Amino acid sequence: MKLSVYAVPDSVADKALKDKIAVVIDVLRATSTILAALVNGCKEVIPAVEIEEVINMSKNYEKDSYLLCGERNIQAIDGFHLSNSPLEYTAERVSGKTLLMTTTNGTSAIKKAVDAREVIICSLTNVDATADYLASQDNDVVFICAGTDNKFSMDDVIAAGAVISRLSDKVENLDLDDLAVVAMSMYRSSSDDLHNLLKHSLHYKRMMEAGLEEDIRYCLTLNSAPIVAVYKDGVIKTIHKVLK
Amino acid sequence: MKLSVYAVPDSVADKALKDKIAVVIDVLRATSTILAALVNGCKEVIPAVEIEEVINMSKNYEKDSYLLCGERNIQAIDGFHLSNSPLEYTAERVSGKTLLMTTTNGTSAIKKAVDAREVIICSLTNVDATADYLASQDNDVVFICAGTDNKFSMDDVIAAGAVISRLSDKVENLDLDDLAVVAMSMYRSSSDDLHNLLKHSLHYKRMMEAGLEEDIRYCLTLNSAPIVAVYKDGVIKTIHKVLK
Repeated sequence: MKLSVYAVPDSVADKALKDKIAVVIDVLRATSTILAALVNGCKEVIPAVEIEEVINMSKNYEKDSYLLCGERNIQAIDGFHLSNSPLEYTAERVSGKTLLMTTTNGTSAIKKAVDAREVIICSLTNVDATADYLASQDNDVVFICAGTDNKFSMDDVIAAGAVISRLSDKVENLDLDDLAVVAMSMYRSSSDDLHNLLKHSLHYKRMMEAGLEEDIRYCLTLNSAPIVAVYKDGVIKTIHKVLK
Repeated sequence: MKLSVYAVPDSVADKALKDKIAVVIDVLRATSTILAALVNGCKEVIPAVEIEEVINMSKNYEKDSYLLCGERNIQAIDGFHLSNSPLEYTAERVSGKTLLMTTTNGTSAIKKAVDAREVIICSLTNVDATADYLASQDNDVVFICAGTDNKFSMDDVIAAGAVISRLSDKVENLDLDDLAVVAMSMYRSSSDDLHNLLKHSLHYKRMMEAGLEEDIRYCLTLNSAPIVAVYKDGVIKTIHKVLK
C-alpha cells in the first residue's frame, strides 16, 4: 500500500489520485466540524467553494430542512445559520438537516479530491475509524491536507501522521513518500502533547487570537467523532459508525 | 526576521519573494555540486533549465573556457563534459572555467528565485557559512527547496532546518512559518545521523540504486564547501569564503 501526503491541495499532481483513496484533512476546522455535525445526526453535508454557491443551492431546499454553514478567514458569514465552530453543531441544531457549507481552505480541498476512487473526510477526531477503514481496503492512499492560505499547515500534516502511524501497525509493506515519513515522525514525537508542538503553528496562533481556544481543544481531541465519512456525488455522509 | 520554507518551487506564491533573500537548496545534488565547483576554483556557474539552452549558450564561449554540466533523471547527459556528481568537479577539471549547467530539479528552483532581493545557493555543505551570512543581514528569508519531481523531498527540508537551527542561535525574535518549525525540528532530532532519517527518502533511495553512495556521502557532509554563493544576473559566484 502506497501512502502519499500533499501539504496543500494545489500541489496534488494531475493523475495522482487515479484509482486511489483520497483522505481530506482540515483539522482547524472544516473537517472536524463536518465530522461533529455527522456524529450529531445531520442528514448530510454539501460542501461548496463559494458563498454565492451555498446561497443558490439553498433555494432547492424546503425551509427548515437546511442550514447555511461556514466561515471566511475564521469569521462567521453574515446571514448564515452556523459558523465553522464544531461546538455549534449540536444535535439540537443539526439533527436531520442538510448542511450547506463553505470554508476558506477545507471545502476547496474536498473538491480537489474528486478524481479519486473514493474521498474520505478525516480529522484528528476520527483517526482510529479512518485508519481501520483504510487498513480494510486494498488501495493506495493520498492524504490531501487543506493547509492554510495554500501553505503547509502543521495541524493537518500531524493528523495525516496520526493515521499513517496507526496504519503502519496494521498493514505490512507500507510504502511511504517523504512527507508521509515526516508526518508520521512528527506525530509520534508529539502525540503525548499535540498542543505543545501546534502552538507554534500559524493557524493555531490565529485561532487563539480570535478567542477560539475551546474549538482548538475540541479539534485536537482524538477520536471524539468515531465515524468514517465519505464525500460522494457532491454529498458527505457517514458510511460507518464505531460502536462504543 | 521572518523565515518561510517552501517544499517545492511551484508552491512559492507570487510576491512571496519581494524584498526577501531567497535561499535555494537542492542537496542531492545540484546545489552541492555548484558549491563544490566554486570551492574548487571554477570562474562561475551559469544555470539553465533546458539542455538546448546550455548548448546554445556555449556558442558564446571560447573553446576550453567552459564545460557543459548536468543531468537528467540522475543520469549524465550525452555529449556533456561533467555529470551532476560533485566528485567530478575537481580543481583540475573546473579551475578557471565557466560551467554551463542544467539539472532536473535544481536549476528550475534557482530560476524561480529571481524575484528575490538576493539569491543564495545553499546545501548541507555550506550551512554554517550561509547561516552566518543571513544572520548578518536584516532581511526576511524564504527557503526554496528544489524537491524531487515537484514533491516534498526530505533532504532539502532538512538542510533548510540546519540553517534555521543555526540562525535561531544567532538572531533574536525569529518568526518561523509552519514548515520552518518542522524543518528545524526534523534537523535537530536527526543531526547526529542524517543518513538514518534520509535513507527513507525517495531521492536517497533512487541514488543508492544508481550506485551513487559516494555522492550521497559527500552531499551530507556538513560544511565541506564553506562559502557563500550568490546567483545574480544569471551567474552564480562566490561572494565570501570562510578562512579555515
